[in-house]
Amino acid sequence: MNGDNLYDVEPWHVREPRLDLDSLARSESVFALSNGHIGLRGNLDEGEPHGLPGTYLNSVYELRPLPYAEAGYGYPESGQTVIDITNGKLIRLLVDDEPFDVRYGRLERHERVLDLRAGTLEREAVWTSPAGDKVCVRSTRLVSLTQRAVAAICYEVTPVDDTVRLVVQSELVANEDLPAPSKDPRVAAALGSPLAIEEHVAHGAGAVMVHRTRQSGLLVAAAMDHRVDVPGRADVDADVMTSPDVSRFTVATRLEAGETLRIVKLLAYGWSAHRSRPAVHDQVMAAIAAANLTGWDGLLAEQRAYLDEFWDGADVEVDGDPEVQQAVRFALFHVLQSAARAEQRPIPAKGLTGPGYDGHSFWDTETFVLPVLTYTQPRAAADALRWRQSTLPAARTRAAQLGLAGAAFPWRTINGDECSAYWPAGTAAFHINADVADAVIRYLDATGDEDFEREVAVELLVESARLWHSLGHHDANGAFRIDGVTGPDEYSAIADNNVYTNLMAAENLKSAAAVVGRHPDAAAALGVTQEETEAWCRAAETMTVVYDERLGVHPQSEGFTEHDRWDFEATPPDHYPLLLHVPYFDLYRKQVVKQADLVLAMQLRSSAFTPEQKARNFAYYEAITVRDSSLSACTQAVMAAEVGHLELAYDYLAEAALMDLDDLEHNTRDGLHMASLAGAWLALVAGLGGMRACPSLCFAPRLPQALDRLAFRLGYRGRRISVAVTDSVATYELLSGPPLTVMHHGEPVELRDGPVERPVPPISAPPAPTQPAGRAPARRSPARRR
Amino acid sequence: MNGDNLYDVEPWHVREPRLDLDSLARSESVFALSNGHIGLRGNLDEGEPHGLPGTYLNSVYELRPLPYAEAGYGYPESGQTVIDITNGKLIRLLVDDEPFDVRYGRLERHERVLDLRAGTLEREAVWTSPAGDKVCVRSTRLVSLTQRAVAAICYEVTPVDDTVRLVVQSELVANEDLPAPSKDPRVAAALGSPLAIEEHVAHGAGAVMVHRTRQSGLLVAAAMDHRVDVPGRADVDADVMTSPDVSRFTVATRLEAGETLRIVKLLAYGWSAHRSRPAVHDQVMAAIAAANLTGWDGLLAEQRAYLDEFWDGADVEVDGDPEVQQAVRFALFHVLQSAARAEQRPIPAKGLTGPGYDGHSFWDTETFVLPVLTYTQPRAAADALRWRQSTLPAARTRAAQLGLAGAAFPWRTINGDECSAYWPAGTAAFHINADVADAVIRYLDATGDEDFEREVAVELLVESARLWHSLGHHDANGAFRIDGVTGPDEYSAIADNNVYTNLMAAENLKSAAAVVGRHPDAAAALGVTQEETEAWCRAAETMTVVYDERLGVHPQSEGFTEHDRWDFEATPPDHYPLLLHVPYFDLYRKQVVKQADLVLAMQLRSSAFTPEQKARNFAYYEAITVRDSSLSACTQAVMAAEVGHLELAYDYLAEAALMDLDDLEHNTRDGLHMASLAGAWLALVAGLGGMRACPSLCFAPRLPQALDRLAFRLGYRGRRISVAVTDSVATYELLSGPPLTVMHHGEPVELRDGPVERPVPPISAPPAPTQPAGRAPARRSPARRR
Repeated sequence: MNGDNLYDVEPWHVREPRLDLDSLARSESVFALSNGHIGLRGNLDEGEPHGLPGTYLNSVYELRPLPYAEAGYGYPESGQTVIDITNGKLIRLLVDDEPFDVRYGRLERHERVLDLRAGTLEREAVWTSPAGDKVCVRSTRLVSLTQRAVAAICYEVTPVDDTVRLVVQSELVANEDLPAPSKDPRVAAALGSPLAIEEHVAHGAGAVMVHRTRQSGLLVAAAMDHRVDVPGRADVDADVMTSPDVSRFTVATRLEAGETLRIVKLLAYGWSAHRSRPAVHDQVMAAIAAANLTGWDGLLAEQRAYLDEFWDGADVEVDGDPEVQQAVRFALFHVLQSAARAEQRPIPAKGLTGPGYDGHSFWDTETFVLPVLTYTQPRAAADALRWRQSTLPAARTRAAQLGLAGAAFPWRTINGDECSAYWPAGTAAFHINADVADAVIRYLDATGDEDFEREVAVELLVESARLWHSLGHHDANGAFRIDGVTGPDEYSAIADNNVYTNLMAAENLKSAAAVVGRHPDAAAALGVTQEETEAWCRAAETMTVVYDERLGVHPQSEGFTEHDRWDFEATPPDHYPLLLHVPYFDLYRKQVVKQADLVLAMQLRSSAFTPEQKARNFAYYEAITVRDSSLSACTQAVMAAEVGHLELAYDYLAEAALMDLDDLEHNTRDGLHMASLAGAWLALVAGLGGMRACPSLCFAPRLPQALDRLAFRLGYRGRRISVAVTDSVATYELLSGPPLTVMHHGEPVELRDGPVERPVPPISAPPAPTQPAGRAPARRSPARRR
Repeated sequence: MNGDNLYDVEPWHVREPRLDLDSLARSESVFALSNGHIGLRGNLDEGEPHGLPGTYLNSVYELRPLPYAEAGYGYPESGQTVIDITNGKLIRLLVDDEPFDVRYGRLERHERVLDLRAGTLEREAVWTSPAGDKVCVRSTRLVSLTQRAVAAICYEVTPVDDTVRLVVQSELVANEDLPAPSKDPRVAAALGSPLAIEEHVAHGAGAVMVHRTRQSGLLVAAAMDHRVDVPGRADVDADVMTSPDVSRFTVATRLEAGETLRIVKLLAYGWSAHRSRPAVHDQVMAAIAAANLTGWDGLLAEQRAYLDEFWDGADVEVDGDPEVQQAVRFALFHVLQSAARAEQRPIPAKGLTGPGYDGHSFWDTETFVLPVLTYTQPRAAADALRWRQSTLPAARTRAAQLGLAGAAFPWRTINGDECSAYWPAGTAAFHINADVADAVIRYLDATGDEDFEREVAVELLVESARLWHSLGHHDANGAFRIDGVTGPDEYSAIADNNVYTNLMAAENLKSAAAVVGRHPDAAAALGVTQEETEAWCRAAETMTVVYDERLGVHPQSEGFTEHDRWDFEATPPDHYPLLLHVPYFDLYRKQVVKQADLVLAMQLRSSAFTPEQKARNFAYYEAITVRDSSLSACTQAVMAAEVGHLELAYDYLAEAALMDLDDLEHNTRDGLHMASLAGAWLALVAGLGGMRACPSLCFAPRLPQALDRLAFRLGYRGRRISVAVTDSVATYELLSGPPLTVMHHGEPVELRDGPVERPVPPISAPPAPTQPAGRAPARRSPARRR
């Protein structure tokens, strides 16, 4: 894994100093703007050239058939795929009749900056047309974090040398041509032109278009309006026209050198599965009216204020590694963008930055993204879990279909229905249910949100506990077993007593019994009986946790350590990721791990393992983990740090953090890896910071040699806390809220007024573990770090 | 499971005394004629009404795309499907311009008889047209067992009351309209009209048509010729015309009451993937010429002589149960038909009797069909194994694709390439390789065929042994393990150390080493080294055979007996077969068995189990086996008999034997269950007869109360032997060949001249086992048996 850095390293910006046409799609993902409701890929204003055009609305999808050569019971027949909706980013420019297109003429300068404090994407281009007219084009784009339905673009053109005739065409375009998404002709047919026009009207300097998705039947409305600002003496001719898939606002003018045409384009998006066409039409018009009232400068100011507040509670400072410093802020920014205003809609694996994974949400959300949000933007975490709750009807139906009680959440979904066509995932990766429960438990611990506990947590924990109880059974010795399930590691499947799954299920069962005890009314409404909670507790208490006495390690699942070890030495580098080069059955029956599984169990269920077991397990799994999943490095970083391999933790941290900025897996083009971005924060805070929660907030910070200082802020039960650590000293400070006791390397530290310092105890690291041949994390050269 | 009997019970015939239009497709399968090369379903001569028209040529298939919603490495992209080729059975009749169609007019009498000694399907219909003209129509159809490319029909029409004008149209029709094979539009497109015309010519009273399959590119030639015989005074007008998909020979005449028009239609079929159009054209014309030379009566005589010889060496007599008597002869007849002239082509699971399972061959052939053929028609068994050998190039490629050495035979195929789109079968059901080896070993033992050993057995055993050695590994204690494979029971998958697989693999490894020792030159040509054979022997000797000490039974696979038991009591009868009502993952992780797996291991690897283990294992698995596969009953019969449950063995025997005659699984319409038909013989001979072979021929006959006598004949190393058993006495006789010692209930019996009698020792049966609720085999009423 390696990448090259297209972007300048700065603490608060991602700056692309020149345009690389071969990396357009990658930069479109990196420069994507989103508020969790609207997502705009970083396409050029003029639309072309592009890597992958993309305008998304959270949960707007089209249905597509899922074909099977051999069908089976419970296979989903139809899948959901995120679709490119009406593109409102388009602003085309003609310079004396030459279209502004960076592929022609001469591009003297092209810079784009993602500003992590302003929440904007800025662009400046100086371009000379083939006919010799030079213009400077500047644009600033935002997707509002304060006005959920609104995006806006400020677009400016200035002739540099001569008087020039300019025509600007600002558009809304539905059913854009896209690169073919699939070789399957039926899928392509379903997704090729997914929007059917319902209404298109122009008014003033704006337009509204309402479309309906052909199969899923969702109404999608997009509106635009414009404010045009030109020097008094210029001629302006503005007009709006619409056709079924295009609305166009045109401004024609003639400017002298140094004069600037400025157009502010306001965009509003809305959709509904239930409301009427007039309702969604009016909704976007209202959003435009509100945005007009706020004005461009007002939108910019609101955006910055929102982010100031966010960074005040969430910033992470990394002294000694500017790349990682930039990367973790980039990561937090995008994690925030994916969720800020999702408001009871899912957080997809790629956020709203690209079409990867069909726009589906997985366990990534609860296990990687929500831990970050829980401590930095808890309302967004609560909203994501309320979304899960809203899908309980589908999850109950799915559980019944699978012959189980309670609720079975989908492995991958947009609307709550299972979309996985691969049954070892779609019918057997039950751990997602415990992952949801774990996120609920973490959120409750971090916030003490009693309304949430009563309204959301009881139902989610009860229904998932019911699933686990019906899924497992007590064996002849009374031990509770969970057989034939797929754990986190996707290079194993359908195994008995996956340790991760069993430990997470036990916690789920215990927590369900606990919330039922605290909320008897809510539990009674769900029909929970005392026998039921007793059975949950008995299952949790007798949960099987397999252990290999001979090796002194926990097998990932029963029998795992008896399996043949993968022949890593005979595996050439270009055979990774293995799943593209070897059959599933062979991966499943050998000791080869795609992504942290038992190691993740040690992070999330820390107290189930002794320190010695953690060290042995870590070394054992480190040697067979190939990290073919972007979900793995952060977990390896966290546990490497815990067992004392700080330099290794640092390498994994960098890999998680740079996944997208450096395009380490060569697929950033399809969208950002939200879980890996979140993992950058986890690797720093849970890894180097040693943060664990439940039942109390603990830290065990330690730095690798390369770092001078790490500082992070987080929220916990109404408080704002900062933690800073250097080589020798950790400093804790309560920034706001009532006093709190936290743990520092196992010792209580009371936080009241002012900073509290504690020495960082030394650790003697065990012998360095090894990785499979060729699969050690990249160690960046010191030159790159500084 | 229950059916109703459409057919009269007679020892040597299957007689359908009246036509049941609702059961047309079922009878088409039952009345199918085949010689293993050509297959003609028992469609009515006039083509309509039909259940499922069907004319097949062994190994003539079309390719179709195999779609995947989520593709994976090693999934086959294209499948093979048997196609309905040029239909030559069609003989339409017009009676004074009214088409003879049993749905109209009045059908006074309609009888069809499958004659198991003559090898013919006879039909007699007396029909009055809507206009009141009564005719008697008689036809006799055969697919020649002596002339491989030839089928023939003798068609006779006789006016009963009045003078009638008759027109007979005898046709060859390609691309018949068929019921849609799939909902997938791409599959339907591929299979809808698979034959493209290459040549169509008429000559004399005949015609030849050559087509090419559109995707698979196979040339298919069909020819017909006619002999017309009418009373001298009748006018005859005969003519042949052809169009791209139809050749038609028309005879028009006028007959008085009692006069008979007789048409003998000769058909010849050929195909090739390599030869030219003129070559296949000439091939079928030559076959027609040969058939003309033999003539209709000659074909009939040859057919009967062939079958007389077959029955002389293969007949099974069952006194006391006419239904089973008929069924076992019906079974032997169809097993013979499926294989007699297949000649290095596969024996499909449905023979050439219908399109079920896409015309694919599975392990059914080697494990169920070949044991019957080995002792009754050994040349056909050898040919089937030579077919397997001919597919070794594809099997080697597949093994390499799966990362393994040697050869991996396909789970399902026509041409040798894997067609299974379900990876737990298509990439993990490796036992098929040991099943092929087992059939090779059995054939060698039964025949002592040294040419076969050198030419075929060495290569098949070596390449399969190589597969096993690369598939397993020695664990820390030196034991050889085979992890993550799918055994015979399709309600488990991807499990470690499947006992059946491991025991069969061990035998394969040992036998490979043995033949290598006997044929060093042949082995050297395959590059076999001494280290290699030593490694095979070491793997075989240290093969893991898991055993549950607590329960005193063998788990089907490692951990199986720890799994939750399926809740049979809560499973309603209409939830069987379970695979249509519950997800795979749930079947796989629970103790529920679709078909004999460990129980089959006890039959095929008898010496690996003590009698006490056999009894305990049988009882254990009997209680969890739901028999959702037609491959199970015969094995349960064999082992029930061995452990002493003779009445239960008898029930299972009847189920296997009546599978198709009684349509027990309601899918006989798609073709006959060749393995279950073969299983009828196995249940009688290996079950009640207690026959085992290797290293010596053993019998342990015992009868259930209902039977008076069982007698069977078989061939063994150049001898023909008969075994007869009554309640108290077994009689062995050497019918031809040199003296031989066989075992009777463990005691040697020398067979030399004349019959030898031995008493049948009593057995004290263990307590009767139980079956899952509702899944006990049907016990036929005594009235039905007699």
